[in-house]
Amino acid sequence: MSVTQVAAYAAPSAKAPLERTTVPRRPVGEHDVLIEIKYAGICHSDIHQARDGWGEGIFPMVPGHEIAGVVAEVGPGVTRYAVGDRVGVGCFVDSCRTCEYCLRGQEQYCVEGMTGTYNALDRSGEPTYGGYSTHLVVDENYAVRIPDALPLDQAAPLLCAGITLYSPLRHWGAGPGKKVAVVGLGGLGHMGVKIANALGAEVTVLSQSLRKQEDGLRLGATHYRATSDPATFTELAGTFDLIVSTLAVPVDLDRYLALLKVDGALVNVGAPEEPVSLNLFSVITGRRTLAGSMIGGIAETQEMLDFCAEHGLGAEIEVIAADRVNEAFERVLASDVRYRFVIDASTI
Amino acid sequence: MSVTQVAAYAAPSAKAPLERTTVPRRPVGEHDVLIEIKYAGICHSDIHQARDGWGEGIFPMVPGHEIAGVVAEVGPGVTRYAVGDRVGVGCFVDSCRTCEYCLRGQEQYCVEGMTGTYNALDRSGEPTYGGYSTHLVVDENYAVRIPDALPLDQAAPLLCAGITLYSPLRHWGAGPGKKVAVVGLGGLGHMGVKIANALGAEVTVLSQSLRKQEDGLRLGATHYRATSDPATFTELAGTFDLIVSTLAVPVDLDRYLALLKVDGALVNVGAPEEPVSLNLFSVITGRRTLAGSMIGGIAETQEMLDFCAEHGLGAEIEVIAADRVNEAFERVLASDVRYRFVIDASTI
Repeated sequence: MSVTQVAAYAAPSAKAPLERTTVPRRPVGEHDVLIEIKYAGICHSDIHQARDGWGEGIFPMVPGHEIAGVVAEVGPGVTRYAVGDRVGVGCFVDSCRTCEYCLRGQEQYCVEGMTGTYNALDRSGEPTYGGYSTHLVVDENYAVRIPDALPLDQAAPLLCAGITLYSPLRHWGAGPGKKVAVVGLGGLGHMGVKIANALGAEVTVLSQSLRKQEDGLRLGATHYRATSDPATFTELAGTFDLIVSTLAVPVDLDRYLALLKVDGALVNVGAPEEPVSLNLFSVITGRRTLAGSMIGGIAETQEMLDFCAEHGLGAEIEVIAADRVNEAFERVLASDVRYRFVIDASTI
Repeated sequence: MSVTQVAAYAAPSAKAPLERTTVPRRPVGEHDVLIEIKYAGICHSDIHQARDGWGEGIFPMVPGHEIAGVVAEVGPGVTRYAVGDRVGVGCFVDSCRTCEYCLRGQEQYCVEGMTGTYNALDRSGEPTYGGYSTHLVVDENYAVRIPDALPLDQAAPLLCAGITLYSPLRHWGAGPGKKVAVVGLGGLGHMGVKIANALGAEVTVLSQSLRKQEDGLRLGATHYRATSDPATFTELAGTFDLIVSTLAVPVDLDRYLALLKVDGALVNVGAPEEPVSLNLFSVITGRRTLAGSMIGGIAETQEMLDFCAEHGLGAEIEVIAADRVNEAFERVLASDVRYRFVIDASTI
């Protein structure tokens, strides 16, 4: 197969609405699989990038790094997948494969930089286009298997939102006997609640208001507290072993650090574009950790999918037709989604 | 023995020079030891507190929490020490003894708050007075044994500077195969270099200039780089497993975090009084940790002293007579000491 044009939704330029177009997909190479995309989740960072919030966007841009589909064709050297397999692709489609982090299965921290699923240049210098599309060609080593127990539409958001929460929850030891707080109950946070609960931790949601309290408790939280209520910060001081913040807006780090036990960790998986302020005494007292975490490697993403399948943890989704993507962007920005939009790729 | 007045150097009020005076010491209780102080180190934080930099100072204030001396009297219930034993006292002289941290030997993180060796109120509400004095009465459980291999004058600074560096170096795994940077070569930093080197790590000093390079290499560093040279930050990007910053002035955290490997930690043991700025992407990329650490518990302080004795690691000191303490304060503020002033208590 030679280069093929496939249908996609793309932002033609920064801040312009997405519109239907076509983009090229490379020929299926020796180790490639061609994926017929079934569903693509809408991640907050899709909006950031399509609107060039982080600068240096490559346009036209086809967002989408929460991709679930079915293998439609395989290259001659492919050993991991066969036509008809259910597979997913997350935030990256390649990496150097030789640095210490790639060799360790931490491709997301590749020394040369991972190749983003979209808004990046691949190793041959061609722009990458994401999952708001009908088809994708990817090296088999950068695809993961979606277990049969997970519906593809609910699985799609796991490829970014799921792994983004699973990785730090595992790394910082969420489990029985541990008190974990998830800050923000959105696309990321709602998966954090589900996964932390399934790992055996006692979960508290810290959300601006109690508006989604019922949801939070249903998803697996034991406690739900409003951060708009100052009593939350006084009463919960020194409570948590781990806090995972999914907020992409500046937070008062000192206030959240004070909620940690000695040796506790506040891990940021969301991040505002602006610098934040911190009093270093907040980490010195109590030997507290302020850390961050970024998605996960391929092996860990597979582990996460298997874990979610075993525990029946799909994302809470609202499936939309592709022509509603711009409206969905607006609703994500307004936090008006419970909890992830997923584009039905058959409508592209 | 009833309450006794002992000679001391005290700041009569905030920002006033220290002067010779007398302060009360409590009677030697059931579990107390009376220590004849031989030497007291001058820590940067003594100056902060005597000049009320952190607010709420209790005056008159006798600074000093790097105390080395000899047991002169023991209470009837004392089992750990006998008259003539060489002992030290560090930054705290009591804690609640019942919280999870006290029970775990992390008295410095006591839920009720440790009782500072000076500028604090003890559990009976009396002000505590520190080591710039001839004698001190302390519960035997809050004293540590100074091994014979360590001269008392060189041992004094270990009670704060030594443990402040030893604890994070151990906690974050400094050892063979690890690259450790120590930021700032002062009272704290010079002990960090010695200890990290003795633990088997490859040590780099990051100092503003190369002025103290010869010292740094002699003390155990393999590399010495100037932070005033931008090349330091480009060439050493992604290099270190652990960076311990001893600076008490605001630092560009993002620049230092970029020097860490994936999963590396930047640990602050010094802290500016003002908030610092941070871009959370600095911790998200590379799953990096920004943390802090505060001295160490009693058991770990004993472990540190034994380690230092085994490896011959005393502090580099300049012994002064007590009447030069105000001059010494000025010189500490001007970074004009290599590397710790120690007051000879026989001159008080």
